[in-house]
Amino acid sequence: MSHTNAYAAQSATSQLTPFNFNRREVGPHDVQMDILYCGVCHSDIHQVRNEWGNSIYPMVPGHEIVGRITKVGAHVTKFKVGDLAGVGCFTDSCRECDNCKSGDEQYCDKGMTGTYNGYEKDGVTISQGGYSTVIVTDENYTLKVSDALPLEGVAPLLCAGITTYSPLKHVGVKKGDRVAVLGLGGLGHMAVKFAVAFGAEVTMLSTSPSKAADAARLGAHHFALTSDAETMKGLQNHFDVILNTVSAQHEYIPYLNLLRTNGTMIVVGVPPTPVQIHAFPLIMKRRSIIGSLIGSIKETQEMLDFCAAHNIASDVEVIKIDYINEAYERILKSDVRYRFVIDIASLKS
Amino acid sequence: MSHTNAYAAQSATSQLTPFNFNRREVGPHDVQMDILYCGVCHSDIHQVRNEWGNSIYPMVPGHEIVGRITKVGAHVTKFKVGDLAGVGCFTDSCRECDNCKSGDEQYCDKGMTGTYNGYEKDGVTISQGGYSTVIVTDENYTLKVSDALPLEGVAPLLCAGITTYSPLKHVGVKKGDRVAVLGLGGLGHMAVKFAVAFGAEVTMLSTSPSKAADAARLGAHHFALTSDAETMKGLQNHFDVILNTVSAQHEYIPYLNLLRTNGTMIVVGVPPTPVQIHAFPLIMKRRSIIGSLIGSIKETQEMLDFCAAHNIASDVEVIKIDYINEAYERILKSDVRYRFVIDIASLKS
Repeated sequence: MSHTNAYAAQSATSQLTPFNFNRREVGPHDVQMDILYCGVCHSDIHQVRNEWGNSIYPMVPGHEIVGRITKVGAHVTKFKVGDLAGVGCFTDSCRECDNCKSGDEQYCDKGMTGTYNGYEKDGVTISQGGYSTVIVTDENYTLKVSDALPLEGVAPLLCAGITTYSPLKHVGVKKGDRVAVLGLGGLGHMAVKFAVAFGAEVTMLSTSPSKAADAARLGAHHFALTSDAETMKGLQNHFDVILNTVSAQHEYIPYLNLLRTNGTMIVVGVPPTPVQIHAFPLIMKRRSIIGSLIGSIKETQEMLDFCAAHNIASDVEVIKIDYINEAYERILKSDVRYRFVIDIASLKS
Repeated sequence: MSHTNAYAAQSATSQLTPFNFNRREVGPHDVQMDILYCGVCHSDIHQVRNEWGNSIYPMVPGHEIVGRITKVGAHVTKFKVGDLAGVGCFTDSCRECDNCKSGDEQYCDKGMTGTYNGYEKDGVTISQGGYSTVIVTDENYTLKVSDALPLEGVAPLLCAGITTYSPLKHVGVKKGDRVAVLGLGGLGHMAVKFAVAFGAEVTMLSTSPSKAADAARLGAHHFALTSDAETMKGLQNHFDVILNTVSAQHEYIPYLNLLRTNGTMIVVGVPPTPVQIHAFPLIMKRRSIIGSLIGSIKETQEMLDFCAAHNIASDVEVIKIDYINEAYERILKSDVRYRFVIDIASLKS
């Protein structure tokens, strides 16, 4: 059992504070890694504060983990000590349902094993995430990480990256497609990079003119201010795909009208309450709306390899662990470009 | 110019009454037919009563037309005098936009030429539909009809048939898929027949226990009462496809939860006001919602040929034209199994 330093929430109303616990023994198919960086996802805040009503305490958040392997189990073939590795939003699944068998473990019928705020496969140990020094995971749910990119920019790929890469691939975005990205945050900035890398003509849709320069810097070919009625009118029936990353309450119908025939709005943000749609804009152009949840292990590895080959990483602000509560407040004000990443060295001392 | 007997609405508040007018001369690419049967679509009522706010009077409704060719233009190659033929919801389109070129004329960027309640390609002649004795149409927008099936049961295929056939094909329904049909009316009863013919395991979803026997007779393998909470709970994550034909106001979210991973709800009914959805049930199972509008000319021909080969026709109640106003009232009470079809012989005397 490996002694692990961490930061944890003890309740929905407490700040994150130092915590320590032991990771499980390394089993025959397990690897143990020293965590180097862990990204800070907006969903960490929702779960720390029990905003989804399913929180388990103490809770060590973090599911954008990059580290270096320090131990491997007897039957491990994929990793050796010293390798770089990553862990994303889940660390296991039932491996038996149709979804697991078809390589869509993220949709496991029995529920994937969350990296934190869940229970490990033994059913009793609370799973604890990456705001910690050490993690032990099954090699089959652990990703290989290249040394081609700065590791602090790789960590957010494990959630923000795969959440946007997977649906763009699933709906078949290709060269020349017109893709709009709605919302420029942790997810949106990755969506722009991927859509550009896939050869699409990319438009950033935003309510804020201040995002225009950043959108261009990220590679977006166009910027459209959604609060401008003329702009919106000019973009009717325009896009093949809109990747909607917005989790704040907003309307869908105005954006559905921006899709051309057979266009698709991908939803990866979860507004807190229901959203109205109307059958008419869907029917008149055979438009569709599809949801998407992170990605499979195979697809996550494909995405990491794609990023290494195409020099794609997340834009990050590296912080020490003792800044985490302040970082949460800044995330809530969208005051980060575009992801906080914890330097886990700051937890080791 | 051919003298044509018809029934027309003169305003949004008037009953349908006898009317006559002249059809255009038969042009080089036109065919003229004596109409034999015309189906009565719920949308006829919406348009007669200007419920969609775009009605043009006088209006001769009807877009489920079967007849026999009586004249062909000099350059017509597809038809000869004496052939059976059909006309659906549109009689022309721009033929130049991306949708027309890719064979999706129903989504024509410039708007298809509606069989009625629109203007013919000359831009001035009000288009008039199939509650009439004669129609003249371009051969490219006219369908070939086999004599294998009773013609009164073929007429509704031109709208109710293609509206359900097209999306089931578009989303790739295949043998063994679990398909649910929501709403048992003109569209729903065709949806059941097609889904069964495609080899799917078909469930009729209905609020009315009285529909169970009919669902079975139409070929549905299962019947589920949507008002029963236990039934709905047992069907969570169950269907690959739900074909939602309901135009009355209803909720989508409970049905989205019946879809399994990668499942799709096809929307062909247009509830009068917006409907709430939530991102969560979409995201957690990569579910989607897609709209669909009738079908292309090529697909409509494919559907008619499929029906002839598989002995599929609409279940109809044949009426004389002077019953049409009463028929409308019965449609509004869902008191028809499942389509009224006008015997146009009753207009000739």
